[in-house]
Amino acid sequence: VRCGVPEVVLAEGKDPEAFAGIMIAQVRAAGRCIATRVSPAHLEALRARLPPGVRLEHREAARGVILSTGDDPAPRGGTVAILTAGTSDIPAAEEARLMAEEMGCSVKTAYDVGVAGIHRLFSALRDLIPADVFIVAAGREGTLPAIVAGLVDSPVIGLPVSTGYGYMGGGEAALASMLQACSVLAVVNIDAGFTAGAFAAQVARGRARE
Amino acid sequence: VRCGVPEVVLAEGKDPEAFAGIMIAQVRAAGRCIATRVSPAHLEALRARLPPGVRLEHREAARGVILSTGDDPAPRGGTVAILTAGTSDIPAAEEARLMAEEMGCSVKTAYDVGVAGIHRLFSALRDLIPADVFIVAAGREGTLPAIVAGLVDSPVIGLPVSTGYGYMGGGEAALASMLQACSVLAVVNIDAGFTAGAFAAQVARGRARE
Amino acid sequence: VRCGVPEVVLAEGKDPEAFAGIMIAQVRAAGRCIATRVSPAHLEALRARLPPGVRLEHREAARGVILSTGDDPAPRGGTVAILTAGTSDIPAAEEARLMAEEMGCSVKTAYDVGVAGIHRLFSALRDLIPADVFIVAAGREGTLPAIVAGLVDSPVIGLPVSTGYGYMGGGEAALASMLQACSVLAVVNIDAGFTAGAFAAQVARGRARE
Amino acid sequence: VRCGVPEVVLAEGKDPEAFAGIMIAQVRAAGRCIATRVSPAHLEALRARLPPGVRLEHREAARGVILSTGDDPAPRGGTVAILTAGTSDIPAAEEARLMAEEMGCSVKTAYDVGVAGIHRLFSALRDLIPADVFIVAAGREGTLPAIVAGLVDSPVIGLPVSTGYGYMGGGEAALASMLQACSVLAVVNIDAGFTAGAFAAQVARGRARE
Amino acid sequence: VRCGVPEVVLAEGKDPEAFAGIMIAQVRAAGRCIATRVSPAHLEALRARLPPGVRLEHREAARGVILSTGDDPAPRGGTVAILTAGTSDIPAAEEARLMAEEMGCSVKTAYDVGVAGIHRLFSALRDLIPADVFIVAAGREGTLPAIVAGLVDSPVIGLPVSTGYGYMGGGEAALASMLQACSVLAVVNIDAGFTAGAFAAQVARGRARE
Amino acid sequence: VRCGVPEVVLAEGKDPEAFAGIMIAQVRAAGRCIATRVSPAHLEALRARLPPGVRLEHREAARGVILSTGDDPAPRGGTVAILTAGTSDIPAAEEARLMAEEMGCSVKTAYDVGVAGIHRLFSALRDLIPADVFIVAAGREGTLPAIVAGLVDSPVIGLPVSTGYGYMGGGEAALASMLQACSVLAVVNIDAGFTAGAFAAQVARGRARE
Amino acid sequence: VRCGVPEVVLAEGKDPEAFAGIMIAQVRAAGRCIATRVSPAHLEALRARLPPGVRLEHREAARGVILSTGDDPAPRGGTVAILTAGTSDIPAAEEARLMAEEMGCSVKTAYDVGVAGIHRLFSALRDLIPADVFIVAAGREGTLPAIVAGLVDSPVIGLPVSTGYGYMGGGEAALASMLQACSVLAVVNIDAGFTAGAFAAQVARGRARE
Amino acid sequence: VRCGVPEVVLAEGKDPEAFAGIMIAQVRAAGRCIATRVSPAHLEALRARLPPGVRLEHREAARGVILSTGDDPAPRGGTVAILTAGTSDIPAAEEARLMAEEMGCSVKTAYDVGVAGIHRLFSALRDLIPADVFIVAAGREGTLPAIVAGLVDSPVIGLPVSTGYGYMGGGEAALASMLQACSVLAVVNIDAGFTAGAFAAQVARGRARE
Ligand SMILES: Nc1ncnc2c1ncn2[C@@H]1O[C@H](COP(=O)(O)O)[C@@H](O)[C@H]1O
Ligand SMILES: Nc1ncnc2c1ncn2[C@@H]1O[C@H](COP(=O)(O)O)[C@@H](O)[C@H]1O
Ligand SMILES: Nc1ncnc2c1ncn2[C@@H]1O[C@H](COP(=O)(O)O)[C@@H](O)[C@H]1O
Ligand SMILES: Nc1ncnc2c1ncn2[C@@H]1O[C@H](COP(=O)(O)O)[C@@H](O)[C@H]1O
Ligand SMILES: [Mg+2]
Ligand SMILES: [Mg+2]
Ligand SMILES: [Mg+2]
Ligand SMILES: [Mg+2]
Ligand SMILES: [Mg+2]
Ligand SMILES: [Mg+2]
Ligand SMILES: [Mg+2]
Ligand SMILES: [Mg+2]
Repeated sequence: VRCGVPEVVLAEGKDPEAFAGIMIAQVRAAGRCIATRVSPAHLEALRARLPPGVRLEHREAARGVILSTGDDPAPRGGTVAILTAGTSDIPAAEEARLMAEEMGCSVKTAYDVGVAGIHRLFSALRDLIPADVFIVAAGREGTLPAIVAGLVDSPVIGLPVSTGYGYMGGGEAALASMLQACSVLAVVNIDAGFTAGAFAAQVARGRARE
Repeated sequence: VRCGVPEVVLAEGKDPEAFAGIMIAQVRAAGRCIATRVSPAHLEALRARLPPGVRLEHREAARGVILSTGDDPAPRGGTVAILTAGTSDIPAAEEARLMAEEMGCSVKTAYDVGVAGIHRLFSALRDLIPADVFIVAAGREGTLPAIVAGLVDSPVIGLPVSTGYGYMGGGEAALASMLQACSVLAVVNIDAGFTAGAFAAQVARGRARE
Repeated sequence: VRCGVPEVVLAEGKDPEAFAGIMIAQVRAAGRCIATRVSPAHLEALRARLPPGVRLEHREAARGVILSTGDDPAPRGGTVAILTAGTSDIPAAEEARLMAEEMGCSVKTAYDVGVAGIHRLFSALRDLIPADVFIVAAGREGTLPAIVAGLVDSPVIGLPVSTGYGYMGGGEAALASMLQACSVLAVVNIDAGFTAGAFAAQVARGRARE
Repeated sequence: VRCGVPEVVLAEGKDPEAFAGIMIAQVRAAGRCIATRVSPAHLEALRARLPPGVRLEHREAARGVILSTGDDPAPRGGTVAILTAGTSDIPAAEEARLMAEEMGCSVKTAYDVGVAGIHRLFSALRDLIPADVFIVAAGREGTLPAIVAGLVDSPVIGLPVSTGYGYMGGGEAALASMLQACSVLAVVNIDAGFTAGAFAAQVARGRARE
Repeated sequence: VRCGVPEVVLAEGKDPEAFAGIMIAQVRAAGRCIATRVSPAHLEALRARLPPGVRLEHREAARGVILSTGDDPAPRGGTVAILTAGTSDIPAAEEARLMAEEMGCSVKTAYDVGVAGIHRLFSALRDLIPADVFIVAAGREGTLPAIVAGLVDSPVIGLPVSTGYGYMGGGEAALASMLQACSVLAVVNIDAGFTAGAFAAQVARGRARE
Repeated sequence: VRCGVPEVVLAEGKDPEAFAGIMIAQVRAAGRCIATRVSPAHLEALRARLPPGVRLEHREAARGVILSTGDDPAPRGGTVAILTAGTSDIPAAEEARLMAEEMGCSVKTAYDVGVAGIHRLFSALRDLIPADVFIVAAGREGTLPAIVAGLVDSPVIGLPVSTGYGYMGGGEAALASMLQACSVLAVVNIDAGFTAGAFAAQVARGRARE
Repeated sequence: VRCGVPEVVLAEGKDPEAFAGIMIAQVRAAGRCIATRVSPAHLEALRARLPPGVRLEHREAARGVILSTGDDPAPRGGTVAILTAGTSDIPAAEEARLMAEEMGCSVKTAYDVGVAGIHRLFSALRDLIPADVFIVAAGREGTLPAIVAGLVDSPVIGLPVSTGYGYMGGGEAALASMLQACSVLAVVNIDAGFTAGAFAAQVARGRARE
Repeated sequence: VRCGVPEVVLAEGKDPEAFAGIMIAQVRAAGRCIATRVSPAHLEALRARLPPGVRLEHREAARGVILSTGDDPAPRGGTVAILTAGTSDIPAAEEARLMAEEMGCSVKTAYDVGVAGIHRLFSALRDLIPADVFIVAAGREGTLPAIVAGLVDSPVIGLPVSTGYGYMGGGEAALASMLQACSVLAVVNIDAGFTAGAFAAQVARGRARE
């Protein structure tokens, strides 16, 4: 396993049968196993081969699946706040949430607060201010993370999303504007909810170590 | 001449002697002639050959020069508001101002209002609200134009500036984020103060026609 | 709502059921609601859930839908002229028209005037000259907007379209040539009829304010 | 000031005289002022105008300058570990260190541990393991951050550096490989020591809040 | 035929009927014929037209097909070691294996040794050390080839694979990081198992010539 | 020598001494020798070493030099028309002219006819219509070649020039718009006056063969 | 019509019904009408609506269709030679052939002469040498046009084709290597058989004018 | 040290004083030390600090320097052939030669054989055929490596060089065409003579191991 990060299977691009085999081998070896970017075909293959005693949890909004034979991950402390600019950014945000929870953090979310005007953002932030770390997902011009970073003291992670169209419309404009931001931001790959969530959990857990 | 737009000489990339020759030929033919991106060498060559009766006005902040044998352009009505996010965006903004004034508009400016916090922007906008059209210059992540477009009813023109460094740091990130903006924005080329100013004047003058 | 611009739902990339839900919620809240890039599946989902008393207008050429419970938008004055170079540019042009009309402007169009020789363009322009602002849509090499801008005094907005093939054939060549144009042009994102139409309406309405 | 992050002047691209003016105004207003990417010309202009009672500290390796009229920043707790792959990555690393120290963190460094074989890295990491957060600077193929992230439990920030030549040799290959890394990494812009340092301090300080 | 390299038909992009015709003509002329990137439709067309006396061997993992009327290629000496970072890199690796075996080399493989931690790699390398040449296939950030090159004395060929997503996720990040590697590496095109295998065989065979 | 095309030395990037040596060796071997992109330093080195009996002709506008020991190239028939959009395109156009004349064609030029309005272009074309082939040089948006191709029956070669700034401002926008042009155009590399001129001469000479 | 070039309808991207309508209107107006990139659906729509007295000729290899009410185009003299490097380049080559024949030239072809070794090329060229102009189509690394240009005296047009995979595998590598070629070559857009054929016909016809 | 590859210092981008310090430390530790991309300033700094007993060898054509206190590297067997297409490719080729010789191989060269016609290449190859491995350096369209690979049985390494101008003129076209080549080629980074030479030596030495 990666150090401190649960092993996660990226379903996308894998043959459903092969995918199910890998998942089941892993839940047997480790008692728990997570997959992201799970299509209906992957899910079906998994269900068809699910051994007795293995629990399958489908997190639809995150396109994720959890296999387990035992308990849920123990809370390890730390709170992660996740915001999205629009509704199209929610799947990436939910992928991040799945990871952060899996790593024992508690998560609070405020979705679709980017285009609805700055007041909606302000009221959303009020509840989230005590969080240890923020993930802000945004597509198109990707400016919400920099705005949030200008308003809170905790570290903010920008998660660029591949919405948008035309020139650099596959998330590149969002990535570029986050990297160029004058605010203090760290960034992950386009659509990389997995990385954003795991990194945020590493930050948030730090406090629980104390 | 271009329709309704004064002929302007782009000094950059021209031999100083040749540049001076073109300028003087043109002021003789038309009574007035503007140059942008003027280096000290261009300026010197122009001064050395300036014929009697031709007035030379050096607009340093805009890196511009105006030669004329007659009066200043008659006011044609319309007000253009020009904002910049930082101090490095000022030369491009001043190039835009030169054009708009040359086309008979009055210009109001608020510079360096991007990084100083949203309050400075709000108070700057208060004075500018009645303007017919806005030009907003920004480099790096280039988000100020979209923010202004979300706050005013008049048309907003984004002017991306080639400040920044690293990934897409030559103004490309700013251009991309303006093109992808969810707000309603029109855009010009990177550093194209000339185009932004002339376009804004065309918009603003429309009202004076009435 | 964005200042002065009606809220518009971008159907593309949204689940049809979710899309229908958002639309109906919004027409109830605001009395009127517009969608762009509407596929047959979106349209069907909307029709299946349409509440009594809500009128659905399908603008096929624009791939747009309008839901309303009341009157059409009041005219606010101003005329927008929309031209296209070829027939493939018409959907983007119609998206622009939908927005401009929705914002209370009257619209005049001349489509497919780019490849038919300069005479067809001249005769088309004769009728459109009094317009307050021009939108010119073009794909491939995207030169029509610059030609129009060289012929009229009103502001011209270039709308690059993702026709073409091969090198930069997804609209990038058109975008680049509009940004580099020697004429005075402002530009929007590739295929961004929405932005072109709303920006043009902001320009045209300026005159009606007087 | 930005929330929790000291205001920093980016000297690069600023006229030396103007730069000195901004710095002195700011140290008078705030008692402390930092600049990054300071050239000899900038330094000279600053020294020539330095008012009595203002202390100038030149951090050569970081290409940074600190003006102050009072005490150094109070320690706020938290430790940041900074590693570099090669010697060309040191200036970016030192810029990060300057920021982290300025924000009250203590910093430990291990430079040039990338090419010297895995053993040098292992022995360097042994001392740094208790750090709250890691910054790893690397140019060319930029793989050191991912390797470190595979070895430690604390969050790791990748800082791509514009060394290298040929294909994507301006830091783009390093940036790309960090964004694509299988390990859990967050990333900042190419050469953005400023951002890496400030972000790391935000993470490290979190623990001191307890 | 190309000098020393067997002629290979790239099925991808060819009409199945035309493909079968080319294959059968070639096996008749040369006694042996290989195809890569063979889809089920290609395979079916081939089987339907297979003449008596022609043997068809389907190498599923390599997406390859061999038609022959005679013996297998004579061993020419030399050993090629092939490693992959993950499981998605196996098809490209198998395409390389097919070529190397076809050119008379013996091949040893170790797949999926990249993410499983450095220990798995070490134990895999122990068996492979005597190989004459290494092919290392990797997608995403593509760093495994450089790590292997740092551990073995024989030449190492990097084979970038088009797994990954987001920024440069089609294999470009892997290609770039291999080209920028500080270790000594030669590289082939993204997904070019054919080239990697044939080049490796040319290297390995050199020894058998003695 | 290349078939039918005189050998030409590209001075740019060559050490002046080495350049002079190559030129003199070649004029001795072939009686005639051409260089393009000649800097003052190259010219000086050449003059310092010029052997008796070798004539040096400096074509300043073309940045070219011709060394010869005998007569000028014999006329081979055919006429090449060369147009430029602006004045910055003249050096590339003159490089083309040098090649065409050297290959025995007669050349007619019309420079700076792009921005001066369509009437100037029409009157320029009137004289050039009988030419066997056209070269049209243009930078920035590069649309003049397509316009000319729409007006004449003879083949038109687009020569993109690296003027312009901002997005694709190094000639890429011009290249892209010429490749995407709806008119019938063939294109050469950015600033490749040499290729345009030699290709045009091949076309024009065809008629003289008769 | 474009000067000297027959009007051609690009079927790709057009609705089959609309396509058929345009074609039939045009054949009625002009007696003859050509379409390229015709899919089976386009063809079917055309056949279903074909009016009596209109002849439909389907050029399958060229993916082209010709509608006519009268005679074939009169020969205008001139010969165009068309070569391809591989078999995947044939559709683009046939599109070029269709255009050249339509413009009254005679066409000779030699396909798949690039990978078969230099001898096959030599023997193919022997028959084609008297041609007035050459079109050479090539994908992947696209070097055949430069080789041919080094062997013949007539002008050579490079036609890059979108075969290949991996890095710049959509025809970009072929385009780039043709533009950078040391031989004298003019180039058209990727897959632009239409342009290559029409340009070649303009060159070849030049001789027939005599 | 890297396994089997001598440690080499890349002078480019290093401060001359720091560079000299690193070199002298290393020659003391290891008895031998190589630098590449050495400018006159680097050389001067090195000479000024050269300790007694250390020999400095300046390889001008390779822009390389060797410091040593003992004997030259022992021959390890194997022959590397190095070819260049033009004269501008010689520095990269010489950098490769330096590395190969330093690793104990014997090197044979044939420079400037690309543009001089295929006959010069054939006669050059005749002498080089017995080499164990070939390095072929080429800029612009970079096709020489593929041609050589089609003529010899030994492995061929393509070394793209950053000559050329215009579109992809910094070596990218050469890199792309080598990666897309139909011949069997492995490739290194643009201008990476170091990597090409060391990789070739690893291949060539393999045979000497026997
Ligand atoms: N065709 C379109 N092009 C660009 N933006 C659009 C288009 N249609 C709608 N929008 C805007 O895009 C944003 C998308 O937000 P949402 O629908 O909530 O994801 C909204 O602010 C819309 O006003
Ligand atoms: N090395 C650096 N990298 C990135 N940003 C910086 C750096 N140094 C200063 N900055 C920030 O960049 C912004 C530039 O603003 P200004 O100096 O007003 O143009 C300021 O907010 C600085 O805090
Ligand atoms: N998987 C592959 N990757 C790269 N090249 C291939 C592959 N398979 C076959 N080839 C070569 O690609 C060329 C394609 O030629 P053709 O099949 O005639 O279009 C042939 O020379 C093949 O040897
Ligand atoms: N295969 C092709 N490649 C490039 N241009 C084409 C092709 N076929 C037709 N055209 C031209 O593309 C333009 C498309 O115009 P339209 O069909 O009106 O959209 C016409 O002028 C055609 O002559
Ligand atoms: Mg903050
Ligand atoms: Mg607004
Ligand atoms: Mg105009
Ligand atoms: Mg870790
Ligand atoms: Mg090694
Ligand atoms: Mg024409
Ligand atoms: Mg030739
Ligand atoms: Mg070979």
